Amino acid sequence: MTSIGMIGLGIMGGPMAVNLIKAGHDVVGYDVSPARNVALEQAGGKVAAGIGELVQQVDVVITMVRDSADVEAVALGDSGILANARPGQLYVDMSSISPGTSRQVAEAARILSVRVLDAPVSGGEAGAIEGTLSIMVGGESEDFAAALPILEVLGGTVVHVGPAGAGQTVKAANQLIVAGTIELVAEAIVFLEAYEVDTEAAVKVLAGGLAGNRILDRKAAGMLARQFQPGFRIDLHHKDMGIVTSAARDAGVVIPLGAAVAQLIAALKAQGDGGLDHSALLKLVEQLSGRSAG
Amino acid sequence: MTSIGMIGLGIMGGPMAVNLIKAGHDVVGYDVSPARNVALEQAGGKVAAGIGELVQQVDVVITMVRDSADVEAVALGDSGILANARPGQLYVDMSSISPGTSRQVAEAARILSVRVLDAPVSGGEAGAIEGTLSIMVGGESEDFAAALPILEVLGGTVVHVGPAGAGQTVKAANQLIVAGTIELVAEAIVFLEAYEVDTEAAVKVLAGGLAGNRILDRKAAGMLARQFQPGFRIDLHHKDMGIVTSAARDAGVVIPLGAAVAQLIAALKAQGDGGLDHSALLKLVEQLSGRSAG
Repeated sequence: MTSIGMIGLGIMGGPMAVNLIKAGHDVVGYDVSPARNVALEQAGGKVAAGIGELVQQVDVVITMVRDSADVEAVALGDSGILANARPGQLYVDMSSISPGTSRQVAEAARILSVRVLDAPVSGGEAGAIEGTLSIMVGGESEDFAAALPILEVLGGTVVHVGPAGAGQTVKAANQLIVAGTIELVAEAIVFLEAYEVDTEAAVKVLAGGLAGNRILDRKAAGMLARQFQPGFRIDLHHKDMGIVTSAARDAGVVIPLGAAVAQLIAALKAQGDGGLDHSALLKLVEQLSGRSAG
Repeated sequence: MTSIGMIGLGIMGGPMAVNLIKAGHDVVGYDVSPARNVALEQAGGKVAAGIGELVQQVDVVITMVRDSADVEAVALGDSGILANARPGQLYVDMSSISPGTSRQVAEAARILSVRVLDAPVSGGEAGAIEGTLSIMVGGESEDFAAALPILEVLGGTVVHVGPAGAGQTVKAANQLIVAGTIELVAEAIVFLEAYEVDTEAAVKVLAGGLAGNRILDRKAAGMLARQFQPGFRIDLHHKDMGIVTSAARDAGVVIPLGAAVAQLIAALKAQGDGGLDHSALLKLVEQLSGRSAG
């Protein structure tokens, strides 16, 4: 079995490390939070005192951290991953960050002959716990092949989508479609409620036709009940929409609906709803329509 | 078996009439096109000389015509359906029209004790041929129950969603979600292509996660290949977006993405692409992004 270092043991990284342990791998973890390190030890993992010590102990390094700045610090910092990695060692960043940062890390790694993949995920905490994440991977084909047995422990769908940064680009497209679909379903629900339609029956028939989507399947019931506990927080989706709109801008691609929904998410965050689930876009449609619940 | 009159024997009404014949019903048809009437006779149906003669011969009248103006003429005209209907007779309008017109027809029918349902469909020509349409029905519960055995011949999902006009309201919401989802997928594809991602692999992984939808399943391959033969024409979706935006306006519901995609569909139509499939929204995203194929 492979020895794997996992940096970042939060809502996503924690259960992913546990699944790797259950699959028989030797897992060494590191997190800035002592409580998370203790939890990993209790699940059968080891804990490193720092990033350098972790990298030197393992075959493969995985990071699952918050944003581009965190990846830059952990991967490119003076005592970070690349500063301690051996030539030929494999580093898989599974955080959701900007494609540009992923390409920057890959370029720095190439000079040191370290192998890098960007492999962000979709599927949330439930997918991390169940090992059913969708994983979109950018990098060299032979490095993808080397990482595949590990990634298949963590995900149900693992797809190589192109060179360095391509995984992040697909994740950005994923977040664009998810945000837009939530907003479309929110607009449809508020519209149907205004006409006193049986919305539960309507959601059923909408889900059965060409309008069918995973948001109607998984989130519409919560939206009808106005239950917005996360799930995936508006704050994080706001971060991701920044990545999407910036990457589209850099490439000269015009995304009218993506840009509009990014603004609506920004409005929810500005109004103090950043901690709610992204399905709370419904709240904003109601508010815009003068239909807010008191 | 029930005797059924079908007014409108076009792309949708034609195969629906044939399915009713195959299910053992006596079908009397009427269309302004002689060729369509001949086709119905060849499939085992009878043809009426006019609307009045048709209505007087049958138990149940169905209309499947183009737009609100057509329904007004056929249902409310001097020699139309209501002018010839018997008290208690059932009339099911399956056209996609404005909810306001459906309520107007229902009110006129109520005075004459004629029973009316609005029952628009989703699923297109393929769904009409296969008898797998999604059918969203507005009207009285007992009239829905009376029509259900007939509607189940035509559709795979048949749902009563509320009072008169509610079927059209749900159809409007359906068209809002479908148009918006096509646009989101179009924006994602152009974005991914700009970064030279393997788009076929990306579509696979997007379809497997929270971004998954019926457009990725059924239309993304054609969009990647730039195949825009209809399918469902931009002209018709433009008509439907007029119904959605107008009905939302009437109810004071604000639909930012719905309004934006209505404008994008209007642009495609204005540029002469009204005859293409609605997935041609991809063409417009490319054009806006300066990436049009020469």
